[in-house]
Amino acid sequence: MTSLSFSDGQTVRHHKPTTAVILAAGLGTRMRSSLPKALHPLGGRPMITHLIETAGSVFDRLVVVVGPDMQALEKAVTPWPCVVQSERLGTGHAARMAEDLFGEGDVAILYADNPLITADTMRALLAARRREGTSLALLAMRPADPGRYGRVIERNGCVQEIVEWKDATEAQREVTLCNAGVLCADAADLRRWLGALRNENAQGEYYLTDVVAQAAAEADVHHVEAPSEELAGINSRAELAVAEASLQKRLRLAAMEAGVTLVAPETVFFSVDTVLAPDVVVEPNVVFGPGVTVHSGARIRAFSHLEGCVVGGEALIGPYARLRPGTICGKGTHVGNFVELKATQLGDGAKANHLSYLGDSSIGARTNVGAGTITCNYDGFFKHRTTIGENVFVGSDAILVAPVTIGDNALIAAGSVITEDVEPGALALGRSRQTNKQERGRMISESLRAKKEQG
Amino acid sequence: MTSLSFSDGQTVRHHKPTTAVILAAGLGTRMRSSLPKALHPLGGRPMITHLIETAGSVFDRLVVVVGPDMQALEKAVTPWPCVVQSERLGTGHAARMAEDLFGEGDVAILYADNPLITADTMRALLAARRREGTSLALLAMRPADPGRYGRVIERNGCVQEIVEWKDATEAQREVTLCNAGVLCADAADLRRWLGALRNENAQGEYYLTDVVAQAAAEADVHHVEAPSEELAGINSRAELAVAEASLQKRLRLAAMEAGVTLVAPETVFFSVDTVLAPDVVVEPNVVFGPGVTVHSGARIRAFSHLEGCVVGGEALIGPYARLRPGTICGKGTHVGNFVELKATQLGDGAKANHLSYLGDSSIGARTNVGAGTITCNYDGFFKHRTTIGENVFVGSDAILVAPVTIGDNALIAAGSVITEDVEPGALALGRSRQTNKQERGRMISESLRAKKEQG
Amino acid sequence: MTSLSFSDGQTVRHHKPTTAVILAAGLGTRMRSSLPKALHPLGGRPMITHLIETAGSVFDRLVVVVGPDMQALEKAVTPWPCVVQSERLGTGHAARMAEDLFGEGDVAILYADNPLITADTMRALLAARRREGTSLALLAMRPADPGRYGRVIERNGCVQEIVEWKDATEAQREVTLCNAGVLCADAADLRRWLGALRNENAQGEYYLTDVVAQAAAEADVHHVEAPSEELAGINSRAELAVAEASLQKRLRLAAMEAGVTLVAPETVFFSVDTVLAPDVVVEPNVVFGPGVTVHSGARIRAFSHLEGCVVGGEALIGPYARLRPGTICGKGTHVGNFVELKATQLGDGAKANHLSYLGDSSIGARTNVGAGTITCNYDGFFKHRTTIGENVFVGSDAILVAPVTIGDNALIAAGSVITEDVEPGALALGRSRQTNKQERGRMISESLRAKKEQG
Repeated sequence: MTSLSFSDGQTVRHHKPTTAVILAAGLGTRMRSSLPKALHPLGGRPMITHLIETAGSVFDRLVVVVGPDMQALEKAVTPWPCVVQSERLGTGHAARMAEDLFGEGDVAILYADNPLITADTMRALLAARRREGTSLALLAMRPADPGRYGRVIERNGCVQEIVEWKDATEAQREVTLCNAGVLCADAADLRRWLGALRNENAQGEYYLTDVVAQAAAEADVHHVEAPSEELAGINSRAELAVAEASLQKRLRLAAMEAGVTLVAPETVFFSVDTVLAPDVVVEPNVVFGPGVTVHSGARIRAFSHLEGCVVGGEALIGPYARLRPGTICGKGTHVGNFVELKATQLGDGAKANHLSYLGDSSIGARTNVGAGTITCNYDGFFKHRTTIGENVFVGSDAILVAPVTIGDNALIAAGSVITEDVEPGALALGRSRQTNKQERGRMISESLRAKKEQG
Repeated sequence: MTSLSFSDGQTVRHHKPTTAVILAAGLGTRMRSSLPKALHPLGGRPMITHLIETAGSVFDRLVVVVGPDMQALEKAVTPWPCVVQSERLGTGHAARMAEDLFGEGDVAILYADNPLITADTMRALLAARRREGTSLALLAMRPADPGRYGRVIERNGCVQEIVEWKDATEAQREVTLCNAGVLCADAADLRRWLGALRNENAQGEYYLTDVVAQAAAEADVHHVEAPSEELAGINSRAELAVAEASLQKRLRLAAMEAGVTLVAPETVFFSVDTVLAPDVVVEPNVVFGPGVTVHSGARIRAFSHLEGCVVGGEALIGPYARLRPGTICGKGTHVGNFVELKATQLGDGAKANHLSYLGDSSIGARTNVGAGTITCNYDGFFKHRTTIGENVFVGSDAILVAPVTIGDNALIAAGSVITEDVEPGALALGRSRQTNKQERGRMISESLRAKKEQG
Repeated sequence: MTSLSFSDGQTVRHHKPTTAVILAAGLGTRMRSSLPKALHPLGGRPMITHLIETAGSVFDRLVVVVGPDMQALEKAVTPWPCVVQSERLGTGHAARMAEDLFGEGDVAILYADNPLITADTMRALLAARRREGTSLALLAMRPADPGRYGRVIERNGCVQEIVEWKDATEAQREVTLCNAGVLCADAADLRRWLGALRNENAQGEYYLTDVVAQAAAEADVHHVEAPSEELAGINSRAELAVAEASLQKRLRLAAMEAGVTLVAPETVFFSVDTVLAPDVVVEPNVVFGPGVTVHSGARIRAFSHLEGCVVGGEALIGPYARLRPGTICGKGTHVGNFVELKATQLGDGAKANHLSYLGDSSIGARTNVGAGTITCNYDGFFKHRTTIGENVFVGSDAILVAPVTIGDNALIAAGSVITEDVEPGALALGRSRQTNKQERGRMISESLRAKKEQG
């Protein structure tokens, strides 16, 4: 009952609802982690979320097979249903756990540790499955080092069997086309083949791969080749880092193609949802956490760290700027060195250039926030807001004890502690007068020096 | 009328003045930028500036062919003359725009999107052109992936023709020597050949490459092979990033060869004019903007960012130090964590180790600037100077409201707002006395906690 | 009199005490440094220290051959004895300087510029030397580019000779097995062979390599092949950077195998002694100086720099946190943006999230240190301590003039200068009252604007 849109614009005829089953029960022992493998993050969000989002854009329904006591994982895939595999009896057994939810249409089996498969690859898998006379389609790859992957053995343009490396002949090991494990078949066929699996092997496990031979005995099996970057499994922290690097490379290239200058792309880290407009310039060593949008002509200088914020056009951010969630910097704003903004709106043309912390505040257009300014937004129990008008000049090292409001065109004297509202146009002072004591500085120093010399 | 110095010390006889014509009219559509391609920066300055500087050290005269409405580009190449190519009718047409300025000597055609050609390569091109019996010399390269570059076809040691990839036979496509587009010939010959170009091709353009066949018909054509890093064109942001990486690699190697320790060279970013003395140590993640000189024995610690400044011998800068233009740090100075200096002179042995902003100031030798010190150098309209003498102790979190002068050996109490000059040797205070209110802290906390618990 | 433990658990029979002679007299001219080559750092400590530690774990005794005037080097290898090579007459001459200290057992000759040889490789060298009928064992490698290395020529499974590249035939140059210079033989044999060396060559030097031919004439010579990353010599800053990169790669992989998440491993820099527990997460761009331990579940955010500190479980450090030696952060502590801690103990659950400098202080559990807080721990001559109790709320921009003690549950008002102790539960204030002057802000701004417009 769905129509598939291909990237070439072609749309195929309606089919029964498709289902993707995601196997996510693995403990990920080689990760040496207390976190389920599928929840380790990639590009700023859990591995499983990538797969849920991609598969959700291609298939009508998703089912996730989880292990026991993986409530956090079940929550992460909400609202899709989960089934629990209580015993670890192999991939075939895991897939079978979901068979009541296969529905009537095509079913693909995916893996939580292949989170970078693209929607195009999933669509190609579905399309291959639907070729006339095809019982099953599977994904294959040609990794630089085929190593101990199972090999895809073809005859006359069809997959004949998957041979595990340890069972392969020398000639079969020469084959560079490797099995990625992902496959797709009709629900009823798949149920039938899974029911026929046997666990008569050294591990005593039911292998999903064994359905391929059954499928090939009944009709054609086709493979779809995809880049090994998409299909290489993530089983250790080192492989997770390789996948992250591969994802970052994709994101950097996409940004540059969209007209963003990355002076040193290899030092810029994106989240998958980072949005940068053309003619944004990003200097070396910048980290984009989730939820960042930067408008055209803005420059993000070195050593900046942005999360959950919007940066207006022509703004100048950093170096060493730290923008935290809820921050909106208007057009032409300047946020400088060692400045942290949290849940703060900075009006057009406003500036906060040095050593400041502005939290839970709104700052009007063209207001200048001096070096060392701090909003005291927290009293140990509650957060309070600071509201500053337009064209205000906040002198250096001002302390703004929230809740507090400062009117337009006001002037805050440097070093003032501001605890009460300031009317528009007023001058507020909250500091002591200076007194100089002749020769006292020298006397103190000399007495300390003498003490030090005495030891 | 010039003499050419080769890197091997050889000098050749005098010639008529040489001219380099730089084709810079390209819009750089694939850059997706509102900035002309030739103005995108590389190593801290525009691409065109690299080429102007290198070509200017080899040729007697330069001419730049620009597109319409490229005033910023024309300004960037001042004082060299520009000619405007109003219609985009191909490289041959662009070169012809400059023919009135070819003069009488040898003319080379260069491209704004090949900014990393070295002076040695340009000199080798000129020398090849001057070999007895040579009508034209051109630059060639052997890229890792020859792809769709035009191929240089030779016979008997001479270039016979350039074959475009789409017109090449299978055998010709096997040739790995590729055309870089850059060529050099006598002014009169080049004018004549350009005048004979035809635009009878699919694009309706005049191709500069077509002069090679004309030249080969009259006398020998020679090629000079250069590294593809120098000659690969920059047509997209991704290619710009590759060129930047290639330039940075050159600069890092040169620094290490000169006796600088780069702990992690791949994380240090230079400008082309960065000057580092032997036995300077640079830790990971340091960015050098334009105009930086660092003297021997200084250490630039991690996460530092320097622009337009001089760092004295044995100085310790960073981590997280931000030196901005106009800053001079004397011998043995310390500039520490989260400290920003702008247009500030720090005398020998002076220290500013933590969380400070010092702008438009001069600070005497051996003066210690405490944590959190801020110069209020800006009143919203004017900048003012802060002058601090020698051996001064500036207590933490002092606020120095400029213009203000502090004499030698003075002592500024921590937390003082200093608005008036301080005499040498004096103690200046500008802060309130402390009062403690018994049990009031606990009462306030408990009342807030109760309020929070009530919701 | 020692027993060797091999990595496979095997232990061999007792032998006479073994000796490693480390040749460290080289000036390292190509380093262009005033520091002896062996003292240049790698992974946060001198090259020689790596070799001393590794060799010290395998051999019973070490001897270091140094050049004249290398007192700093002699000190660095304490308590192992040094002998001085006064004239630079080659590696054979250098080894001979140590012959009185060879003892009676096996002697290996190592080089200060091969600091990354592993203990396993050294043990394999010793084991090869002890094979029945073996006079000498040497280390060999197969570098990607064999270049001008001497070639190891074998016949019937034994090394026959080392042929220097310049003396090698075309066929010998095809050999990819290269001499690493490191060798091991019985003390008496080695003394005898060294005594027979001649310096009749172009350089007039005694080459250690020449003992191989003598050894091969008497009995079998065996080679042990080791990765070229271990054996490639460090003769320039660029080669030092390559070795550092190789060491960092080892350290990063080891951390990930131990269960640490490195989001971008290539941007994290370790010291050799960094200890990270499983389920520690390290974001991009983090530098670990010497002496850091991080407990499980802690997260080290981007742009942080840690040295000589302990981070408790579940702590959140950074971004932009700077932890200096002597710092201990308890369980669940938060150290945030632009915060520097030096010799400071932070109790469990305590927080210092913004723009603070805390030095020589202890801070109780659950205490909240507001933004901009500074401990004034230095009076220009002495350092003083700040002691803060539990559950204290330190308001923003507080200045704590040490020595000072703040009791449990106290509350420090924002912007206060605290010079005297605060009792438990008390509220301390040290700031001025605010006064607002109507319209004065606007008047000052307008007068400044007028002045500016007049120029």
